[in-house]
Amino acid sequence: MAAYKIVLVRHGESEWNQKNLFCGWYDADLSEKGSEEAKQAGKWLKEKGYTFDVAFTSVLKRAIKTLYNIQQELDLHWIPVHRHWRLNERMYGALQGKNKAETAAKYGEDQVKVWRRAYDIPPPQLEESSEYNPRNDNKYKNLDRRVLPLTECLKDTVERALPYWHDAIVPAIRSGQKVLIAAHGNSLRALIKYLDNVPDAEIVELNLPTGIPLVYELDENLNPIKHYYVAPDDVVQKAIDQVANQGKAKK
Amino acid sequence: MAAYKIVLVRHGESEWNQKNLFCGWYDADLSEKGSEEAKQAGKWLKEKGYTFDVAFTSVLKRAIKTLYNIQQELDLHWIPVHRHWRLNERMYGALQGKNKAETAAKYGEDQVKVWRRAYDIPPPQLEESSEYNPRNDNKYKNLDRRVLPLTECLKDTVERALPYWHDAIVPAIRSGQKVLIAAHGNSLRALIKYLDNVPDAEIVELNLPTGIPLVYELDENLNPIKHYYVAPDDVVQKAIDQVANQGKAKK
Repeated sequence: MAAYKIVLVRHGESEWNQKNLFCGWYDADLSEKGSEEAKQAGKWLKEKGYTFDVAFTSVLKRAIKTLYNIQQELDLHWIPVHRHWRLNERMYGALQGKNKAETAAKYGEDQVKVWRRAYDIPPPQLEESSEYNPRNDNKYKNLDRRVLPLTECLKDTVERALPYWHDAIVPAIRSGQKVLIAAHGNSLRALIKYLDNVPDAEIVELNLPTGIPLVYELDENLNPIKHYYVAPDDVVQKAIDQVANQGKAKK
Repeated sequence: MAAYKIVLVRHGESEWNQKNLFCGWYDADLSEKGSEEAKQAGKWLKEKGYTFDVAFTSVLKRAIKTLYNIQQELDLHWIPVHRHWRLNERMYGALQGKNKAETAAKYGEDQVKVWRRAYDIPPPQLEESSEYNPRNDNKYKNLDRRVLPLTECLKDTVERALPYWHDAIVPAIRSGQKVLIAAHGNSLRALIKYLDNVPDAEIVELNLPTGIPLVYELDENLNPIKHYYVAPDDVVQKAIDQVANQGKAKK
């Protein structure tokens, strides 16, 4: 029997997803469709009787607003919400703000594919003067600038996300609180890689569907027992098919 | 010169304000008008260049959503938001959920006036079995039930709000963070009574306008230097007139 149950949600579509731009740490807003996805996630959770004691999210508004929409549906505005930069999306370096055609034209398609698919090869760094440099962003003003990445491969994202899992999320789970995490494709990959011990070559191919709550049941040592989506069967099946086909899917 | 500057905002109209019901700890949602008031508060703050590092609010959604709407206008989703029951509205006891006509019919108009205006006379307690009893509310499940009021006079509200001011808000102010507090008519009265040392008989007559940010400039010992509203002159003047006339105004 599961000792603990946590729920992960990847944020809904952002305005930059819509434009097909590499987003990373850029603080793009949810699109109209993204808000609807988030509300739907909340409705599915409500139908199945889920409730939460505490929520964790990034400092990026597409995740925070996804969470807020879920709180709205569950009537859980009052639960503590912890925002942390370690749950941010992967920092895409010089690719941020560029679309796939631009990056392919500049660096070559094969190279871009390497940056998107390799576990440990980061794209070029953001320039210090870039408008996307987190070192110039108020959100991060109280952090050591050396901890703020100018680019990341997925390995980097895993390494910076896990301390927050261990130091903030796990203690909440162990204290018996029901935990909801609203985050990003790559920060959630980081948690899943750790939980399920997914090999490097496989985790880069794992694409979580957006806006579909993913439950992990954990034993008393926080080892996963099983995981499943909370959504109607046909939606879940479609999501599973997408995950199965994702070797060829776009990120 | 002010060492510190804090901003207080009373939540916009709730669905129960609209119906003229005593609300207290009942978790009424913002009305459409209340959301608009909150957005407008955010716009005024933005126009004047205000920004914040941290926000404090109650566990009641009319305050939380007022804050969220302000964060939305200021693009400050990412700042830490601390929700706490000590910033809740005054608990109105047996008056909660009743309208003014009902209470007058049941208890007599003079008696209701006493409960609304006296600093230290609480209305009758909620019954243990009441749907409004906070001891049956999930929000408060981790608290000692003896700390949860079944009724409050304003004096009680002051006494339970101030520990949060001293232990959570003041340290944030002193650490140099720009603080925003989104709360309720009576929890804000509590802070203002303390800050300005307002006599008991006067504080019960102080009605803050809803959705108009109120700035307090404090010296290095947290003594108020001055306070003023952030809104266009005519709106501020109207608010000041209302405050001046509030001896006869409805709460």
